Amino acid sequence: MRHLDVANRASIRRTNLGLVLRHLRARGSRSRTQLAEDLGLPKATVSNLVNELVERNLVREGDVQRGGSVGRPRQAVELHGRKLCGLGVEISVDYARAVALDLRGETLLDQRITINAERDSDVLLDAVAALVTRAIDSMRAQGIDVVGVTVAAPGEIDRDAGVVLFAANMGWSRLPVVAGLTARLEPDAPPITVGNDAKFGAIAEHAIVSPVGIHDLIYITGEVGVGAGIITNGQLLLGAAGFAGEVGHMPLDPERQQCTCGRRGCWETMVGLSALMRHAADPDDPVRDPDRDLEVRLAEIRTRAAVGDGRTLAALDRIAHGLGLGIGLLIDVLNPQAVVLGGYFAILGDHLLETTRRLVGERVMAPHAGGCQLLVSTLGFTSAARGAAQDALESVFHDPGSVSAPPA
Amino acid sequence: MRHLDVANRASIRRTNLGLVLRHLRARGSRSRTQLAEDLGLPKATVSNLVNELVERNLVREGDVQRGGSVGRPRQAVELHGRKLCGLGVEISVDYARAVALDLRGETLLDQRITINAERDSDVLLDAVAALVTRAIDSMRAQGIDVVGVTVAAPGEIDRDAGVVLFAANMGWSRLPVVAGLTARLEPDAPPITVGNDAKFGAIAEHAIVSPVGIHDLIYITGEVGVGAGIITNGQLLLGAAGFAGEVGHMPLDPERQQCTCGRRGCWETMVGLSALMRHAADPDDPVRDPDRDLEVRLAEIRTRAAVGDGRTLAALDRIAHGLGLGIGLLIDVLNPQAVVLGGYFAILGDHLLETTRRLVGERVMAPHAGGCQLLVSTLGFTSAARGAAQDALESVFHDPGSVSAPPA
Repeated sequence: MRHLDVANRASIRRTNLGLVLRHLRARGSRSRTQLAEDLGLPKATVSNLVNELVERNLVREGDVQRGGSVGRPRQAVELHGRKLCGLGVEISVDYARAVALDLRGETLLDQRITINAERDSDVLLDAVAALVTRAIDSMRAQGIDVVGVTVAAPGEIDRDAGVVLFAANMGWSRLPVVAGLTARLEPDAPPITVGNDAKFGAIAEHAIVSPVGIHDLIYITGEVGVGAGIITNGQLLLGAAGFAGEVGHMPLDPERQQCTCGRRGCWETMVGLSALMRHAADPDDPVRDPDRDLEVRLAEIRTRAAVGDGRTLAALDRIAHGLGLGIGLLIDVLNPQAVVLGGYFAILGDHLLETTRRLVGERVMAPHAGGCQLLVSTLGFTSAARGAAQDALESVFHDPGSVSAPPA
Repeated sequence: MRHLDVANRASIRRTNLGLVLRHLRARGSRSRTQLAEDLGLPKATVSNLVNELVERNLVREGDVQRGGSVGRPRQAVELHGRKLCGLGVEISVDYARAVALDLRGETLLDQRITINAERDSDVLLDAVAALVTRAIDSMRAQGIDVVGVTVAAPGEIDRDAGVVLFAANMGWSRLPVVAGLTARLEPDAPPITVGNDAKFGAIAEHAIVSPVGIHDLIYITGEVGVGAGIITNGQLLLGAAGFAGEVGHMPLDPERQQCTCGRRGCWETMVGLSALMRHAADPDDPVRDPDRDLEVRLAEIRTRAAVGDGRTLAALDRIAHGLGLGIGLLIDVLNPQAVVLGGYFAILGDHLLETTRRLVGERVMAPHAGGCQLLVSTLGFTSAARGAAQDALESVFHDPGSVSAPPA
């Protein structure tokens, strides 16, 4: 109802560019006519917007499709794959992983290095910076632009400052991750941010289950640390200061074991990776050697479980019970549609799920666990890095006008 | 950008009526000119909308105000107080309470009866229906229309069906509260709904702290049952099926005491009203007599604490520790701006707060408890009934066109 001045028109045009791009992400390829109908915009406007997105290499003309048995065939517009990507980098206690995703969510790169968080944080940042540099170089060699790097780290994080405030299992306190990495990268490196690993994991898992209508979920990370990312109504629950989802230190252990955080009885001491290793093997057992690749060590645990090793099965049963206790609590508090088990819980899911489901069913107050499904991540240890890569792409989906067209 | 047909215009007009009414609730009295500016609507449109709201007795012309040092004085428009109200009725283990609120949120009626939930549910519903009938009659005698009755009850509730699915402390399973009350009331009684007590409590508390910018909070009920209502980004967190906030049965008690729900170790067994009474007094002590008024019994506990009675102080200390453990957990999971203690926790707040604050500070992982304040409700035991009364008024704020104008 108000008059639009020129500045407003430009701003609306930019907003609409993002609208089209996000609609293609949510709904898949569409013809220009379908886009105009879906978005309630004139067809000429949509065509102009699509042309601008094509110029920027963000969308491309796809296959010809038929709307029905009659009528003209329509050419579909779809997200362009291989021209730009977001880079997500997870730093965990045992490993760092870099994943590059294109606009379509397809994996262009997935590289992992074994690290040992006991190391000096300078040495750790050196290794992560080298991983990032290799990933950027590899993308650029293929003509793919990296629009941003998002680091997924455990603990409480000040995103604006780029600082991990506290991460017990890493031994970090007020570590300036963004400044530390920026100083180690080339001056023309893309912008870097850092956020909480479990939250990015939840974003990646939501992208997987969103097509089947799941928009309220809790993603639980299973690494040395245990955290959660919470999606409610399709949105990440951040809390007032961005700290929501800190579930690893819920005081659930009646035996009140000492936790690395200095407290006693934390959930992490019951179900974290260290608890599994402690219950499953003696200290000198090679599966507990932090210098060996975690995924190889977990494969050994799987083998032992498969051949019916009593100590391994008892350890898994104990983890499954602890999981049921904490997950039941979280379902009571948040009443999600699904809880998704990630990290090592996903790798060993078939040995955990039945017992954990039974415990959850016994513990949750609402009938039928409030309708909540217990799912195992299909992304394994890649969720956090994938979600971070999606985060790095958000600036493009939010404001495609920020991406410059390549030289003609 | 689309053409509006007549039906759309009527629908937009109805929507705008609600927009004006809700804006007056949020911002207080405004002149027509201010309303037009705030809402981005033409002044003539706003004047028509205000006239329609005045006809329906929903707003009235208020005091003359000056916009500044110059210019014409403007007459303010404000919510009309005393023409209609919502009735909220809380059913708890020890009492039932009816509160009527007008559109301005002012209390028109607050009545309480002592009940005993061990009674047959038919007897209980008889008593509640009598309370509702007296409240409606009292309002009508003053020329005030009751637009709706909302019942606040503990436990898991199916709002659409009007059924309490399960409420351990009441001994209820699939109790059709709405049908039971409707059958007991006059045919011309206003429409009845039922919802969870803690969620309505949170709505009432949010209305109190919203003016100071608190829009992420957890309200904890302290009655025989312990529940929570969670507000995130100013909205009630319902969860996928409306069951979110079930915190009373978090498995936090290392002593694993038996709970009325059949499980062991529930938070309620550590901090619920029965735990306080059990720790503070012998079974034959009059403060534990359920037939006596709860508020009188709590006043006696206060007196004993004030004179330094050792057993009472030890009981309060134990409750404060248990509160700190559970509240710390909830702050870690949700990172709210505030946790508001309600019910008996509010009545005894000055004896609990210091210890609970210390425990929360020790337990929460985020620095400075994630910035969360621990507050004591100023509404005491009235929160749930007040929030339910606000809920009963929502239909008016959502669609003021549903309220008919009184006969001329």
